[in-house]
Amino acid sequence: MTEGPSLFGPVASDLVSVEDGLQADIDRDPPEVGAPMAELFAAGGKRIRPALVLLAAKCGRYDLERLRPAAMAVELTHAATLVHDDVIDRSTTRRGRPTVAATLGDEPAIVIGDFYFARAYEHAARTGVPEVVDILARAVMAICAGEVRQQAIRYRYSTDQAEYMRRIEAKTATLLAACCDIGALLGGVAGDKRDALRAYGRELGLAFQIADDVLDYTATEGEVGKPIGHDIIEGFATLPLMLASIALEDQRRLTEREARDVVTSVRDSDGPRLALDEARKHAHAARQQLRLLEMSDASSTLASLADYVVTRKL
Amino acid sequence: MTEGPSLFGPVASDLVSVEDGLQADIDRDPPEVGAPMAELFAAGGKRIRPALVLLAAKCGRYDLERLRPAAMAVELTHAATLVHDDVIDRSTTRRGRPTVAATLGDEPAIVIGDFYFARAYEHAARTGVPEVVDILARAVMAICAGEVRQQAIRYRYSTDQAEYMRRIEAKTATLLAACCDIGALLGGVAGDKRDALRAYGRELGLAFQIADDVLDYTATEGEVGKPIGHDIIEGFATLPLMLASIALEDQRRLTEREARDVVTSVRDSDGPRLALDEARKHAHAARQQLRLLEMSDASSTLASLADYVVTRKL
Repeated sequence: MTEGPSLFGPVASDLVSVEDGLQADIDRDPPEVGAPMAELFAAGGKRIRPALVLLAAKCGRYDLERLRPAAMAVELTHAATLVHDDVIDRSTTRRGRPTVAATLGDEPAIVIGDFYFARAYEHAARTGVPEVVDILARAVMAICAGEVRQQAIRYRYSTDQAEYMRRIEAKTATLLAACCDIGALLGGVAGDKRDALRAYGRELGLAFQIADDVLDYTATEGEVGKPIGHDIIEGFATLPLMLASIALEDQRRLTEREARDVVTSVRDSDGPRLALDEARKHAHAARQQLRLLEMSDASSTLASLADYVVTRKL
Repeated sequence: MTEGPSLFGPVASDLVSVEDGLQADIDRDPPEVGAPMAELFAAGGKRIRPALVLLAAKCGRYDLERLRPAAMAVELTHAATLVHDDVIDRSTTRRGRPTVAATLGDEPAIVIGDFYFARAYEHAARTGVPEVVDILARAVMAICAGEVRQQAIRYRYSTDQAEYMRRIEAKTATLLAACCDIGALLGGVAGDKRDALRAYGRELGLAFQIADDVLDYTATEGEVGKPIGHDIIEGFATLPLMLASIALEDQRRLTEREARDVVTSVRDSDGPRLALDEARKHAHAARQQLRLLEMSDASSTLASLADYVVTRKL
């Protein structure tokens, strides 16, 4: 979280209080579930989801006491999905450290994920607004439905861009949109303005995920904290590969050597640049949504976030 | 559900409407998650959890429109835990059919569980009462914490009765207590009476689980829909074994033959009878709690349920 203060503007210090709340929470949990979650949090993460809850609410009435549990809920939901994703994808490294599944085994990782999903819904309920639970639960269902579809296209490298967009919509954009929607709801931002914040979150999510998928080809392992070419090794074609026009034989896992060659070919192609252009279009669309809101520290921070997600190096 | 109408008395027909709601729900879900869940529901289950929600509420104000989503929430929560349990325990059979994990693999089973946990919380939120979400989430966290402890004592057959009681408290009693608590809350049953209903649910759950663990030794495979001696094969000592005073060497999985021998020894011992005595004590304690409530169709149905769980044959 090195970029905290400047990146999150007027909510930076409140995010620290959210972080403290999460930490205090986890410290009170049974150590069998709490300790691995504490490690995951200690390993980093940008906390963009709780930031979106707070910033969206800052566009209306801002009451940290009601917002804090909502912000904690979205971050715990994200963390729980990561723990389960790493079981499903058999990933051994996350944020530069061994995954929960790799360290403790699949069985504890499943239970730890379930525990923190439950904790997230409990916090969502603590806002006193049942719709917050509803929005969060629907986002999780969308993530799950996308995950099932994703499993179905594993090793089908020829899937098209439309399929890719549906996938990142479910994987990332839905939860970021939900964060903005929850913030707007709790901040009393209604009607067109709430719709605009939700749409901003969605576009930001699309931009963020495309940029992430570009980094999976162009960054170094030290920068992203997991092996480069992770997606293609796992059997998933992402936008940089699609735009590199590299044909791969469907229905089989690539060898390590083949995967390295694909990464090199994609790096040397126009794929990453074209994909980043695509990401920038969504970042621009995100900023456009903000025109419906009054200018404020919060809205200009949201605008900067849209720039950040397509320029970040890790 | 052959024993439906008589077992659940005044809420029997409303339980059919809960069941229809679940079915309609699942039919609308993406088939990748909905179809396996539909199969699990079609394979049976006693629907004791939604029945407890309705019966507890019937001890106060009864409003089916608010109760239906709560009843759906607890049954979906139970179903989601079963789907994940079968991944964790590597169980291949449930209710006489292959488990979701055995049919589709661990990865889809994890996602399907996550999806229906989320759906459950969404329904809980539809009651409009955030505390319903809170009670449900806390029950799930207790189940998870118990599951983690359970993994830690796998193949430790010498664990004592106190450990066993803590285990079944987390595994079964907490959710049944939560069902009664949610019903009482939505039915406006407050104070001592609400406490009594929650305590009833807890005692019922302990009785139910002990009886279930006895059936794991004394029933036939056809009756329980899964292999007999399942618990000991999986490495867990339950009350009938503990009361049979059979010593087993810790820290290793039994061979199939050893497990069969243990099952025979337990069957031939006083263990099952003594364990059933213990279950009856909890069923009695459950009935005692009901004395705080006014006599009604609902309270006498709850009393009969306590008898049923310790006399059922499957």
